[in-house]
Amino acid sequence: MYRDPVSASPSPAAAPAAQRPLRVGMIGIGTVGGGTFRVLARNQAEIAARAGRAIEVTMVAARDLERAAGIVGAGVQLTRDPLQLATHPDIDVVVEVAGGTGPALDWALAAIAHGKHLVTANKALLALHGDAIFEAARQHGVAVAYEGAVAVSIPIVKALREGLTANRIAWVAGIVNGTTNFILSRMRDDGLDFGTALAQAQALGYAEADPSFDIDGTDAAHKMALLAANAFGTPVPFDAVQVEGIRTLQVLDMACAAQLGHRIKLLGIARRQPDGLELRVQPALVPDTQLLAHVDGSMNGIVVCGDASGVTMYYGAGAGSEPTASAVIADLVDVARLAGTQAAQRVPHRGFHAHAMRALPVLPRAAVSSARYLRVPLHRASDAEPLGRWLAAQGLVPRKAALAQLPEGTGAQWLVLTGPATQAHVDGLLDQLQRHPAVAGAVTALHVEPLDA
Amino acid sequence: MYRDPVSASPSPAAAPAAQRPLRVGMIGIGTVGGGTFRVLARNQAEIAARAGRAIEVTMVAARDLERAAGIVGAGVQLTRDPLQLATHPDIDVVVEVAGGTGPALDWALAAIAHGKHLVTANKALLALHGDAIFEAARQHGVAVAYEGAVAVSIPIVKALREGLTANRIAWVAGIVNGTTNFILSRMRDDGLDFGTALAQAQALGYAEADPSFDIDGTDAAHKMALLAANAFGTPVPFDAVQVEGIRTLQVLDMACAAQLGHRIKLLGIARRQPDGLELRVQPALVPDTQLLAHVDGSMNGIVVCGDASGVTMYYGAGAGSEPTASAVIADLVDVARLAGTQAAQRVPHRGFHAHAMRALPVLPRAAVSSARYLRVPLHRASDAEPLGRWLAAQGLVPRKAALAQLPEGTGAQWLVLTGPATQAHVDGLLDQLQRHPAVAGAVTALHVEPLDA
Repeated sequence: MYRDPVSASPSPAAAPAAQRPLRVGMIGIGTVGGGTFRVLARNQAEIAARAGRAIEVTMVAARDLERAAGIVGAGVQLTRDPLQLATHPDIDVVVEVAGGTGPALDWALAAIAHGKHLVTANKALLALHGDAIFEAARQHGVAVAYEGAVAVSIPIVKALREGLTANRIAWVAGIVNGTTNFILSRMRDDGLDFGTALAQAQALGYAEADPSFDIDGTDAAHKMALLAANAFGTPVPFDAVQVEGIRTLQVLDMACAAQLGHRIKLLGIARRQPDGLELRVQPALVPDTQLLAHVDGSMNGIVVCGDASGVTMYYGAGAGSEPTASAVIADLVDVARLAGTQAAQRVPHRGFHAHAMRALPVLPRAAVSSARYLRVPLHRASDAEPLGRWLAAQGLVPRKAALAQLPEGTGAQWLVLTGPATQAHVDGLLDQLQRHPAVAGAVTALHVEPLDA
Repeated sequence: MYRDPVSASPSPAAAPAAQRPLRVGMIGIGTVGGGTFRVLARNQAEIAARAGRAIEVTMVAARDLERAAGIVGAGVQLTRDPLQLATHPDIDVVVEVAGGTGPALDWALAAIAHGKHLVTANKALLALHGDAIFEAARQHGVAVAYEGAVAVSIPIVKALREGLTANRIAWVAGIVNGTTNFILSRMRDDGLDFGTALAQAQALGYAEADPSFDIDGTDAAHKMALLAANAFGTPVPFDAVQVEGIRTLQVLDMACAAQLGHRIKLLGIARRQPDGLELRVQPALVPDTQLLAHVDGSMNGIVVCGDASGVTMYYGAGAGSEPTASAVIADLVDVARLAGTQAAQRVPHRGFHAHAMRALPVLPRAAVSSARYLRVPLHRASDAEPLGRWLAAQGLVPRKAALAQLPEGTGAQWLVLTGPATQAHVDGLLDQLQRHPAVAGAVTALHVEPLDA
């Protein structure tokens, strides 16, 4: 049994023999980097009390050294060369918060090859190159920590990798993009159309000038791929995620979903099925009896269903400098606590030890089965009933159906919640339904996720 | 930089040089112990893939050896003597899931003194004797893990101790007792009175034959004391928790709270104040705009507010054999990953390193300030307005007031939400209010917790 010489000291309140500070090099000092520096400075005593040693940013790589100096002040070495920082002998941990994937991969691999631990909030980097990075880190015996890359301040990687390790995970469902959740909340609560809600999100700083990454679901897909790896012990399956964004969502469907007791969310789903993984990011209806349906505004929420734990849920900010810094610094504290022990190696980067990981096939879109919401514009309201019988005869049984309660003149809209059917089956049916003589306009079809345990 | 010889091996998929299994001795094989054994067996391959080694229950201490043998089968050594197990040389970790505080303390200290790591789901033991146990463990360089003692399957100790370490925590608010939350949900949703809801909880196995521990708030106080220690770096302050249970709650107040947009929950609050800690377990009104208000049935939910993270919330089962086993086994995986390294010592038991902990004073009840809900039976509805002016003149300003919308013949009930005031001030005022000539019956006063970030 290992005994720390300090622990056996007679005075229980004595400070441990001073471990030298953990020396951090930061690549990038923008929104997340600046927040990390600020929180580390503000809470330094409390953080050291938790970590068992001081955590000091000793070097920063930035493009604009003058701006960087204005943020970090004197006493921090500055460089324009991230590679110099990543390989510098006086750095223990590299915090990569610059973003991007090409150069960032070089920096990450250089840092690892030089025996540095790596903390990053770069979801794109890990979604695309995570497996290579994790394998390099494993071979060099260093930690790669990335809580800030998944759900901002929510410790969900830690929950999956360490908190739920008893479980065979059945599924993970998440609202993991604050921008789109803000937009959808505005559409629902204020009746705004997509474009207006997006403009509002941009004005408030919740959306970028080019919002494609968020609204097309790419960002959420990055995060779901990382969650899937941790939940199921599979290499990061980003390439296989089926992604639909929210550009074409109509505010009318928000109201119609509400009438059926549901809310529309951009939902990531990673679910174990007998033949492989279901893995997709799509706008979906969630019953408003589920707590996840009430994750509104720019907040994030993730539900995990395990065979022993049952359902657990994790909720927190979906954006922000200091919330992301909270996760980055928690990773630094983990490193500070474990660096120099074998433990940095013993908590595997993706929850499972490398030798036990298996590449699980991701089910193709056509094979994925789910319940559906349909909104069908009708020439006459009385066409609803025969159309319901027609749908049932095609094997898509209406579980709940209603005519939309809409202002006069909007035309009859038939709303249906169906039982589960494969995407292939539904695709074929939608084609026929669209050409049905009773149908007066474009049919809208969305997934429904009951999220039952 | 430490390098695991295995990591440098040429084949990335090679299994690590077999670490021998972690040998677990369990004291108690009841609901939690049986669930732990069952889940360890069912998910053994997945758990080993996560832990990096097998986790094997090799010895069980139980009163009824025949019953125990029926559960664990052959191949597990059985004993009637927990102390023999706790000190046995062939055991690496002792899992204490027998409950109680007297003998359990002896077993815990014996195990620690013999260099065993300790995993326990025994909240009473840690609330009463945690500081002694943690200090002994620190001196002997072993881990004490207790996720299962706080919020069943929710990894909240891990979140506070590791996931939110960047933060100065402002407050923790929790629904941490599944029994009382079930009872309150039945009262609210089905209009049952307390006694009927309790009987239903007992019939369904959510409440014990003697339910005092749950309904008087003691169990929640145990858990809040452990959360407070982890949030604020203070020794476990169980003795100082102000506790009120739910025995006297009236179903009428459920409806009246709903009319004001609130739900009544048995809420634990641990909040940092300038002069010390606010620490209490009380029935309280939570605005239904807060996600925590929607934690219903036997579920648990905990909200943590940190200065960097903002608000995060954690939600999951509030009772159950396998949900608790999920937490116990996660602790075992932590031990399996870290045992034999210095790391077992480097993640401090209460989140903060012992030398940096400070005993924070807990504010006396009289000094605690909060907003209030008052329900005042009136002789005449028209008395409400002058009574509002009288209250305001006494310094308890009504923020919102209404006459209860109740069936005919129930009498006028004036409902008030006040601004914050100290308990001392409110106590004095309630005395006067009760004797006011306009008041027709017993005044009900409950705390209101807005839970603003």
